[in-house]
Amino acid sequence: MSAPGPVPASGPAPGPAPAPGPAAVRAAALARLSVNQETVRQLSLPELARETAALGIGGVGLWRDPVRGYGAEAAGRLMRAHGLRVTSLCRGGFFTAKDPAGRRAALDDNRAAVEEAAALGTGTLVLVSGGLPAGEHDLPGARERVADALAELAPYAEERAVRLAVEPLHPMYASDRCVVSTLGQALALAERFSARQVGVVVDTYHLWWDERVPDQLARAGEQGRIAAFQLADWVTPLPEGVLLGRGQLGDGCVDFRAFRELTDAAGYSGPVEVELFNPALWARDGADVLKETAERYLTHVL
Amino acid sequence: MSAPGPVPASGPAPGPAPAPGPAAVRAAALARLSVNQETVRQLSLPELARETAALGIGGVGLWRDPVRGYGAEAAGRLMRAHGLRVTSLCRGGFFTAKDPAGRRAALDDNRAAVEEAAALGTGTLVLVSGGLPAGEHDLPGARERVADALAELAPYAEERAVRLAVEPLHPMYASDRCVVSTLGQALALAERFSARQVGVVVDTYHLWWDERVPDQLARAGEQGRIAAFQLADWVTPLPEGVLLGRGQLGDGCVDFRAFRELTDAAGYSGPVEVELFNPALWARDGADVLKETAERYLTHVL
Repeated sequence: MSAPGPVPASGPAPGPAPAPGPAAVRAAALARLSVNQETVRQLSLPELARETAALGIGGVGLWRDPVRGYGAEAAGRLMRAHGLRVTSLCRGGFFTAKDPAGRRAALDDNRAAVEEAAALGTGTLVLVSGGLPAGEHDLPGARERVADALAELAPYAEERAVRLAVEPLHPMYASDRCVVSTLGQALALAERFSARQVGVVVDTYHLWWDERVPDQLARAGEQGRIAAFQLADWVTPLPEGVLLGRGQLGDGCVDFRAFRELTDAAGYSGPVEVELFNPALWARDGADVLKETAERYLTHVL
Repeated sequence: MSAPGPVPASGPAPGPAPAPGPAAVRAAALARLSVNQETVRQLSLPELARETAALGIGGVGLWRDPVRGYGAEAAGRLMRAHGLRVTSLCRGGFFTAKDPAGRRAALDDNRAAVEEAAALGTGTLVLVSGGLPAGEHDLPGARERVADALAELAPYAEERAVRLAVEPLHPMYASDRCVVSTLGQALALAERFSARQVGVVVDTYHLWWDERVPDQLARAGEQGRIAAFQLADWVTPLPEGVLLGRGQLGDGCVDFRAFRELTDAAGYSGPVEVELFNPALWARDGADVLKETAERYLTHVL
């Protein structure tokens, strides 16, 4: 949060600084907010930039496919022209193939993702580790292959000023999408590397149920490893199934304020990114969804 | 496993005991197997008893509704008449109500469940803790209410020779059904009580993703707290959704043999219960499903 405005040179002698008014608090909070592009996938990149900036939201998280379609450097310029930070690029990863060809293809694709992040002008590449290959039963082995891939990629990314951000996904995705299921596992992986090379993503949707998160957030914060803080609500029953059922803030049972206070206490002062995969939101007017998201953020997170 | 048969009194001098043959190994393994009634809910209790016993399966896990319909003592006699153990009664729990009336109703219902278990002749009452009440966001508070309820029930159950078996359910159920999401949480709750009063349920479907399970199983075993060991497979994508998608053994990615070896190493020698909630199995002939289940168990678990 920024300090209150400067005292006018010709004013009275400085007393205690006045508390910022509600409008300043709101503006500072919105400047910290980032909206992940998938939340409003119905918007083009220019629409996203315009509507997000118009609301005073400070940043966006972008995805590789639309960024490549637009051109990574051009997308970065577009966002900067609207005063927006690109808080993350989603996503690399999918490192769990066992066969050499699959493994090589994954590493090649991730080097391309690093380059796209650098061209876009973001320092955070979100990685989803990949699931168990079909027919496999060896979860520890798959997790070790993720570590091996990070070891190959981390120096490459660091040279390009991009940090690999390992995202733990909810355990319900352990088989098909992400063998890294907890913040503890993500941290254990990240701690094999420097904090400049590998960080972790903290996403409330994936972690809200885990009582170890407060301690792990403190540990991640001490190490400077919180690379992204993402929000989505957990709604019961999952409104659009396991994959797309991520609820608008306030519609479910996540205690966002407690999460945000924990990340604050851990020393994290970076962006707070809202990432909702939810067809009900995609069917609505994108600008309306952005406005609602900003209001929900101010109500439930601030 | 039992020792090989006695040496005939008039036989040759005893040498090394012969290894049990395949038929004896199979019979001993099936004697350890228990099939949870929900796996074949299309069968009545008499059908379940007859078909299970005919296959040489040693036990059944039963559910309160059908047991009450038949009469708990009569159901117990029926199973014993077929040489079957009742390895568990499912289920009590749902302790997370905040209001005094809801809380009192839950405790009353659980005392009734304890009495039903005692009448049925099983020492294991499986408890599912309950989820977050609607509109609640305080997961630690809900978990503490579970502990409070256990404290009220444990002496009552112990007097009736029934052990409360706390079942951690997969984290995807934390909001609506079970705030106890890991074996670690279940153990932490159970350890507030004697191992005679409160144990834990180890279910592969709920725990397969968690890398801490091997250590926790060892700890649970040392304390004699493994009250039930249940099997179901995790199939991707979940074939019947979050609630009913429990796969037949071998259809998914769970390493059952590794799990069974871990429970063996932890000193657990009790029944191995297969509990599948799966409409595709319910639509089939129940005796066929039982037979398939026994064969899958022999192939993937033994």
